Amino acid sequence: MISSEFDTIAAISTPLGEGGIGIIRISGKDAIPIVSKIFHSPRGVKLSDVKSHTIHYGFIIDPKTGQKIDEVLVTVMRAPNTYTREDVVEINCHAGYVTLKKILDLVVCLGARLAEPGEFTKRAFLRGRIDLSQAESVIDLIRAKTEQAQKIALEHLSGKLSEKINELRDSLMRVCAHVEAYIDFPEEDIDGLTHEQIQSEINRIKEEIKRLIEGYEEGKIYREGLRAAIVGKPNVGKSSLLNALLMKDRAIVTEIPGTTRDIIEEYINIKGMPLKIVDTAGIREAHDLVEAEGIKRSLRAVELAELILLVLDSSRPIDSLDEEIINKVIHRKVIVVINKKDIKSKEFQLPETLKDKPAVEISALKGDGIQQLKELIFNTTISGKYEQEGVIVTKLRHKVALENAIEALENALKSFEKKEPLEITAMFLREALSFLGQIVGVVTTEEILNLIFSEFCIGK
Amino acid sequence: MISSEFDTIAAISTPLGEGGIGIIRISGKDAIPIVSKIFHSPRGVKLSDVKSHTIHYGFIIDPKTGQKIDEVLVTVMRAPNTYTREDVVEINCHAGYVTLKKILDLVVCLGARLAEPGEFTKRAFLRGRIDLSQAESVIDLIRAKTEQAQKIALEHLSGKLSEKINELRDSLMRVCAHVEAYIDFPEEDIDGLTHEQIQSEINRIKEEIKRLIEGYEEGKIYREGLRAAIVGKPNVGKSSLLNALLMKDRAIVTEIPGTTRDIIEEYINIKGMPLKIVDTAGIREAHDLVEAEGIKRSLRAVELAELILLVLDSSRPIDSLDEEIINKVIHRKVIVVINKKDIKSKEFQLPETLKDKPAVEISALKGDGIQQLKELIFNTTISGKYEQEGVIVTKLRHKVALENAIEALENALKSFEKKEPLEITAMFLREALSFLGQIVGVVTTEEILNLIFSEFCIGK
Repeated sequence: MISSEFDTIAAISTPLGEGGIGIIRISGKDAIPIVSKIFHSPRGVKLSDVKSHTIHYGFIIDPKTGQKIDEVLVTVMRAPNTYTREDVVEINCHAGYVTLKKILDLVVCLGARLAEPGEFTKRAFLRGRIDLSQAESVIDLIRAKTEQAQKIALEHLSGKLSEKINELRDSLMRVCAHVEAYIDFPEEDIDGLTHEQIQSEINRIKEEIKRLIEGYEEGKIYREGLRAAIVGKPNVGKSSLLNALLMKDRAIVTEIPGTTRDIIEEYINIKGMPLKIVDTAGIREAHDLVEAEGIKRSLRAVELAELILLVLDSSRPIDSLDEEIINKVIHRKVIVVINKKDIKSKEFQLPETLKDKPAVEISALKGDGIQQLKELIFNTTISGKYEQEGVIVTKLRHKVALENAIEALENALKSFEKKEPLEITAMFLREALSFLGQIVGVVTTEEILNLIFSEFCIGK
Repeated sequence: MISSEFDTIAAISTPLGEGGIGIIRISGKDAIPIVSKIFHSPRGVKLSDVKSHTIHYGFIIDPKTGQKIDEVLVTVMRAPNTYTREDVVEINCHAGYVTLKKILDLVVCLGARLAEPGEFTKRAFLRGRIDLSQAESVIDLIRAKTEQAQKIALEHLSGKLSEKINELRDSLMRVCAHVEAYIDFPEEDIDGLTHEQIQSEINRIKEEIKRLIEGYEEGKIYREGLRAAIVGKPNVGKSSLLNALLMKDRAIVTEIPGTTRDIIEEYINIKGMPLKIVDTAGIREAHDLVEAEGIKRSLRAVELAELILLVLDSSRPIDSLDEEIINKVIHRKVIVVINKKDIKSKEFQLPETLKDKPAVEISALKGDGIQQLKELIFNTTISGKYEQEGVIVTKLRHKVALENAIEALENALKSFEKKEPLEITAMFLREALSFLGQIVGVVTTEEILNLIFSEFCIGK
């Protein structure tokens, strides 16, 4: 399928950084011969003779200099029961970048090629162990920020989405075969009943696909998180609210060193939904700044966010500054957070324009109402119904393919209803089939594959 | 030896971050039973029945909820041929912090205890697989910043330092036995020849230990790097020099995300010696700053450094600002870097005070002389003689123990020469023995162990 399919690839498969174990993974027909040249077992074990799925203690020695590089455990797994369905050798060494790099260099010197990002998983796909949507879910599993996101990714990896798509493809294939059968007998008219059946079956498939698309917005949120901004004039309690939200449920991801050095993202885990507070330097410093600057920053945060948490100070009446901000956010997805409820003033009145927005009273400082706010954020975002159905689309690539399939099905229906030549209907049905096929990878191009796997990390 | 010696410990053993493989390591007598409870093999493999050093494909399933957590490979290694000499199970899963954390939580729920930093290696020591100095070198191997440092750490792990120390201990033990033999026959005088032999043997041992101590300064540099500061008045070419140095030989460590978020260390690899440029915000910005501020920053960098690279601009005569800086650094270890040699002015004269300092002419912008500068840095720092001898002390703890041993040997010699009761000489010899024993860990305390292993990373 691709020219380099059969060469032997190698990469450091553990994350870089300090840790107990580092692994170099090698896959391909030369994996065992290559590692044999640098592995020395004190017991005289030869890797070429060992059983599959066994581990061997020894040393990596540079064959040119005779220098000992590290004390290692080498795992030999023979095709086809491996991650890539090729021979796979894993060298388990004493972590440390210098050691890992030296061993990788040796392996490459002996004929392996540095693996591209995601290339091990790509091979698992190319060799038919998993389909494309399963392969794609591997990186989601690695990047999952909450248990819920991890669960969805694992379901995709297990093939739940693929099953659904394949079901739809089968149904569509049957309709298509039906239609094409008539092409060969152009003189016969399709009778009324059959006509109706074909129409209704296409409609049914279309509806199912629509439902998958509808779930995408929620799926995407589980996968990528929802970007939210805390907005309000100075001193309404924005930083207190941020702290109250972060306090207990700061998502575990914040403990992980980021892949970039400078950006620290604040994730809050709300019932498995990662809420990502848009980096708003303004929030934390607003009350040290002159008002105008504070407002400017809030507004910039608004632009970037998918959800606005509009904070109002209920200990004072609404003033023109509040109104200015309200006008800026009124057409966005807003939750009104009425702060300082413990010292609420009688003069405070919720503006008419906000009456139909979801709202909650809290005291950010005391932590009152924070739980209710979280419930509100969750309920206004996640219906839960798509997830319950077991299959939830999380990737834009899949959504686009589904939308294209719908368009093709609609064209098929139109041409069928207009009684255009059946060839045209069949062509549109085939097109829809092909779009569905893109998701699981029965229809694909090198370009699409490269796009998908370039998103991966090296060594997977 | 310690109360918790026999419980079962678990940790995430791969670095956190994005990568293809994540590993949970479990060690102890319950390692196999615990993982058996959460591992499900589609082929019905039972971990309790499998051979040692084999790998098995399957799923981790939460026994309470029945929820599938991940698709994994589980490695079973039975005592005693394991890292810890206990039963060890490694769960190789799809990296990703959420997955790793969930599996670790399950394992802990079922009775494993979270491992302390370095606890796997500590067990390898406590169970006698490696001695203390070998165990200590594991973390150096992981943290090594250059190939040279990695090589020295690996030699220590292989037991080269231990061999040397044990050799010295054996010699000392023999002297000690000799002396103690006379204690039982106090009426007999030690004859002249024997007296001389004992003296000379103690002296020989003392000299060998001294030599080890002498090597420490260089060993430490390989292990920790040499802190250098680039110093000079504004516009002499400090940033160009930094860039020229970094250009080709920036040590690989800078590609690794740091363990702290804010500090980015600049390492330059000079023939295996890590040169660490002290974080000198001043260097990079100096020429944007007023002169006074630039000088202030340079001087702060001087305080932190072990080596000063004093940069002079040879296109202009030395002025009072140069002299001010020269006076501040003249008593430190300095290399004089005479920059802009391509446009050297006839009015430039190296000040008399710098005449005996090592110096090199360069053009930082053109890259001329950079290689010579590096050689100079290396040669003024590393003699190479200790390394050639094969054993080089890199750890302060070892150096202190060696120094204590020397002191005890000197006391032994004094008391022996003064013909004090032999018991006193023997006591000092025993003391020296005990100090040497601290290095390899035949003499140790829980406190020392905790101190050593707390420096480790979790999971090793």
